[in-house]
Amino acid sequence: MKSVIDILDLSKSEIDSLIKTACDIAANPAMYADRCRGKKIATLFFEPSTRTRLSFEAAMLELGGNAIGFSEASSSSASKGESVSDTAKVITAYADIIAMRHPKEGAPLVASRSAGIPVINAGDGGHCHPTQTLADILTIYREKGRLSELTVGFCGDLKYGRTVHSLIAALSRYSGIKLVLISPDELKLPGYVKNEIIEKNGMSYRQTLSLDEAMPELDILYMTRVQRERFTDLRQYERLKDSYILTLDKLKNAKPDMSILHPLPRVNEISVKVDEDPRACYFKQVYNGKLMRMALILYLLETAKDKKREIPDYSGDGFIVNKLKCSNPRCICSEERELDQIFRATENGIYRCIYCEGKATL
Amino acid sequence: MKSVIDILDLSKSEIDSLIKTACDIAANPAMYADRCRGKKIATLFFEPSTRTRLSFEAAMLELGGNAIGFSEASSSSASKGESVSDTAKVITAYADIIAMRHPKEGAPLVASRSAGIPVINAGDGGHCHPTQTLADILTIYREKGRLSELTVGFCGDLKYGRTVHSLIAALSRYSGIKLVLISPDELKLPGYVKNEIIEKNGMSYRQTLSLDEAMPELDILYMTRVQRERFTDLRQYERLKDSYILTLDKLKNAKPDMSILHPLPRVNEISVKVDEDPRACYFKQVYNGKLMRMALILYLLETAKDKKREIPDYSGDGFIVNKLKCSNPRCICSEERELDQIFRATENGIYRCIYCEGKATL
Amino acid sequence: MKSVIDILDLSKSEIDSLIKTACDIAANPAMYADRCRGKKIATLFFEPSTRTRLSFEAAMLELGGNAIGFSEASSSSASKGESVSDTAKVITAYADIIAMRHPKEGAPLVASRSAGIPVINAGDGGHCHPTQTLADILTIYREKGRLSELTVGFCGDLKYGRTVHSLIAALSRYSGIKLVLISPDELKLPGYVKNEIIEKNGMSYRQTLSLDEAMPELDILYMTRVQRERFTDLRQYERLKDSYILTLDKLKNAKPDMSILHPLPRVNEISVKVDEDPRACYFKQVYNGKLMRMALILYLLETAKDKKREIPDYSGDGFIVNKLKCSNPRCICSEERELDQIFRATENGIYRCIYCEGKATL
Repeated sequence: MKSVIDILDLSKSEIDSLIKTACDIAANPAMYADRCRGKKIATLFFEPSTRTRLSFEAAMLELGGNAIGFSEASSSSASKGESVSDTAKVITAYADIIAMRHPKEGAPLVASRSAGIPVINAGDGGHCHPTQTLADILTIYREKGRLSELTVGFCGDLKYGRTVHSLIAALSRYSGIKLVLISPDELKLPGYVKNEIIEKNGMSYRQTLSLDEAMPELDILYMTRVQRERFTDLRQYERLKDSYILTLDKLKNAKPDMSILHPLPRVNEISVKVDEDPRACYFKQVYNGKLMRMALILYLLETAKDKKREIPDYSGDGFIVNKLKCSNPRCICSEERELDQIFRATENGIYRCIYCEGKATL
Repeated sequence: MKSVIDILDLSKSEIDSLIKTACDIAANPAMYADRCRGKKIATLFFEPSTRTRLSFEAAMLELGGNAIGFSEASSSSASKGESVSDTAKVITAYADIIAMRHPKEGAPLVASRSAGIPVINAGDGGHCHPTQTLADILTIYREKGRLSELTVGFCGDLKYGRTVHSLIAALSRYSGIKLVLISPDELKLPGYVKNEIIEKNGMSYRQTLSLDEAMPELDILYMTRVQRERFTDLRQYERLKDSYILTLDKLKNAKPDMSILHPLPRVNEISVKVDEDPRACYFKQVYNGKLMRMALILYLLETAKDKKREIPDYSGDGFIVNKLKCSNPRCICSEERELDQIFRATENGIYRCIYCEGKATL
Repeated sequence: MKSVIDILDLSKSEIDSLIKTACDIAANPAMYADRCRGKKIATLFFEPSTRTRLSFEAAMLELGGNAIGFSEASSSSASKGESVSDTAKVITAYADIIAMRHPKEGAPLVASRSAGIPVINAGDGGHCHPTQTLADILTIYREKGRLSELTVGFCGDLKYGRTVHSLIAALSRYSGIKLVLISPDELKLPGYVKNEIIEKNGMSYRQTLSLDEAMPELDILYMTRVQRERFTDLRQYERLKDSYILTLDKLKNAKPDMSILHPLPRVNEISVKVDEDPRACYFKQVYNGKLMRMALILYLLETAKDKKREIPDYSGDGFIVNKLKCSNPRCICSEERELDQIFRATENGIYRCIYCEGKATL
C-alpha cells in the first residue's frame, strides 16, 4: 500500500503511467464511470481549499465512487484535541482513501503512518502539494507532447511558491530542461532548491529580473503571484509589481505556442484579458488536475490490495530517532502527541526532519 | 445553453413546461431516478442558506446525480481573493450545472457569463431568487389547478420581500389576477414594482392595512415576516405587529379552500397551531420547490448540449458599456475585478445596472 | 414509524436483532450495497462532531444511499431563527431519515414529533447518544460472544460521561453483569444513575478509586477522560491524574483477553503505545459503530413504511402538559417556540421533563 506525500514519492515511471491513464480517461470517460463503485474518498481539510477539495471529490464521483469529509478544522474532531494519527485510524473505518489538507507541515505523513488506507497529501502548509504538480505536469505534456527539451520560465514569487519548487523537482528527471527563473531579488529561488535539486541534477538554469527579457525564449511560462507582504521595502514593491503582471501587451514577444500556467487562485497577476488568448492554459490545468487525481486514486487503490504500508525502515541506517528535536513551529511535531522525532541524514552532517524537511545538527 | 438568474429569464411557456415536468415527477418519481446519472451539481453558497442548498442537492440526488460544493464563503477560494468569474470557470471543470448563492447582487449573472455550464441563481442578496418563485407558482398551480383568475393577498413586509416582488412579476403574465397588498405604511410595495410590473401589465390591485379586512376574499394568502428593525417608530411596530401574525382565530373569516403560502423560514408570523389547518401549504411549498428544481435542472442540462451561451449582445443598442458606474455597494460591481460596467436603457432616460438593477442617469 | 432518541427506545429484542444484522453486514457487505438505493439520510449537525457525522454518512453510502446535511449551526437555517420542529418538517421533503446532533437536550425528541421521517439522536448536549451505546454493545458482543456474565469496569469521569450512563442502562437488561466503577470521588457515578438504573435493576456493582486494584478482574475496561476542569482542588487533580491514564505498564495485571473500549476522541487518557496491544478495541469500536448505524438505518426505514409515529399519548395518565416549566437552561424548552411543556410522573411525586429528564415538583 502506497501513499503520496511528496511528488518524489512517485517514480518517473509511475508518473508516466499516471499520465497515460489520465489521457485515457480524457479520451474515454465513460470507461471509467464505474471503476470505483462502492469506494469512498475522505477529504479531510483541516484548512479550507475549495478548489482542491472539489477536484478530489469530482474525481472520485467521476469514477463512480463517493466522498465524505470536512472542509475546515472547526468542523472536525481536531477541535476536541484528537491527534492526526487517531483521525487517520478512525477514518480507516469509513473510507478507502484519504486526501488530507493540513496547516501543519508533515501532518499527511503522520496520517499515512497510522492509516490503514492510502493517504494523498492535498497540501501541508507551505511544504508539499503533489497533486498540483501532477496537474502541472499533465498540462505540459498535453500541450507540448513531451516533458523534455523545454525552456520553462518561472515568474514571480519563487521563494515561497511551493508549487514552483515541486515542479522543478519533478522536471529534474527529464532531459533538456532549461529553467529561466524570473523574480525580484527578494523572491529568488531559495539556495537549497538550487543546490539540492537544480545543481545536483545538473539542470540548466539562469536567473533574470525581467519577464519581458525572458519572454521570447519560453516554451512554458509558469506564473505566480508577487505579494506586497513579502517586501520589506515597499518602494521596491511599487516599482516592481507591474513588471510581474502578465498582460496581452507583454505576450506580444512570446512564442505563438507558448503555454501559460498558473496554480490558481489568481488575484491580479494575470489580466483577465489574457484568458481568451489560446496560450492561456490555467483553466485547462484545473481540468487536468482532476484527471490526474482520478488516475492517482485508481493507482493507489490498486496498491492498497496489499495492506502492508510502503514506508522506510526508520530504525535503519540513515535515520536517527528521538535524539534531535525539530524546532520548526509549523511542523506537525509541534502539536502531535507521542510522535517519534525522526531525522534523515543528508550530506555534510546535516539532518532533516522527515515531517517538514527542517534542518538540525547533532 | 441557458442560465436562470431572474424569474423573467424563463418565458411563460418555459414555466408551463417546468410545471408539467414537476407534476410528472411527483406522479412518477421512479421514472426520473436515473435521468442525471453521472451528472453533478455544484452548490456554491457564498453565504449559508441550508434549506435552499439541501433542496438543490436533494433534487439532483433524486435525479440520480451527485452534488459537490460549499456552504459558506469561509470554506471557499473567495477568501483567497478569487473572483466570481474565475470560480465559475474552475467549477466548469468539476460539475455540469451550478446553483449559486451570493451576498452580492448580480454575482450569479457574472458567473453565468464566464461559466461553461448553466448557472442557477439561488439567491443574490436582496435581489432575485427565481427558484423560490418557481416553488410558489407550482404550489398555487397544484392547489388551485390554475394560475389565472385568482385573488392573491400578500401580507407583511412588501417593501423588502424579494419573493413578493418576484411572484408578482411571475403572475403578471396570467389573466384575472387580483392583488391585495396588505402591509403597514412603512412596508408598502415599492413604487417601481407598482409602476414597472403591476401598472405596466395592467394588473388589478388594492392596498390595505388590515389582514382581517382582506381575508374573506383571498384565494391565496402569501405571508411574510414584519421585522422590528424595519420601523423607525417602535410604538408603531408595537401597535401593528400582532395584526400581521396569522392565527387560527384570524383564519375564521377565510375561504375554506384558501391556500396559505410562506417562503420560510418562519419565525413567529404564523402560529404553529395553523400548521394542522388544511389550508396551510408552506411545507408543501418546500416539497414543490424540490420538484421545480428537479424540472429546472433537467431543462437546463438539456439546453447545455448547445455550448453557446444564450446572453444578450451587450455591444448592441440599448446597452452602454463602461460609461456609467454603479453606485450600489451591494452590487457585485463593487468587488469583482476587471468587470465591464454595463447598463441597460429603460424609459425616461434612466439606465439600470444589469447586475443589480440599480439606477443611473447619463 | 419509529425514532431512536434514547437507547431505551430500543427493546432488548430490537437490540439483539440490530446486532444480528450488523454481524451479517460485516460478513457479507456486498449483500447490503444496494439496500438503500435512492434513499437519503440528512445529517443535521447543529454542532460539529465529525466522527459521528462521517459514520452516519459512510453507513448510508455503504447501503447504496446518499447523504445531505450540514456540519455546524452557522451553516443552517437555525441562524435565521428557524425552530427545530420546522427544520424537521422541511427536511421531511428532502430526505428519508434524519440523524440529528444538537447542543440542546431534547432537540431530537422535538424533531421526531414533527418530522414525517424517522429521527436518530446523534447526541443532544450531555443527554443521550444512543448510537455510541450501540457501538459499545456490538463491540462487547463481537469480542466476548455474549452480553451477559461479564465484569465491566468503567474508569475515569463517571459523573459527566453520558456514554457511561447509557451503556450501564443498556447492560441492565442482561444477566450476570458486575460493574466496577473506577473514579476519583469528584467524578463518581451520579446518585440517580445508581438509584434508577443499577439498584432498580438489581445490578451488582462496587466502587473503587484505583484502576490498578480493579484491573485483574475485568473482562471489559471502558475508559473515559478525566478533565482538569472538573476539579475544584487542583492538587487533588495533580495527585490523581496519572492513575487514570492507561499505559502498557498498567495492563500487565489485566486478563489476557480483556477488551479496552473508549468512546473517542482520545486525548491522553490511553497511551498511544497501547494501540498495538491486542486488547485495544477502541478503533474496532469505530468500525462497529458504522455497522450498527447501518443496521439501525435499515430497521428504521422499514418501520417508516407505516407513517404513524410511535410516540406516547402525552394527554394520558402519567403526563402533565403545560403546568410545570422546565428550568434547565440546556433544555430545548428554553428556546423552541410554542413548545408544549410536558412532564412525566415518576416515583415520589417527582416529575421529569420529557425533553431533558430535568426534575420538577408540582
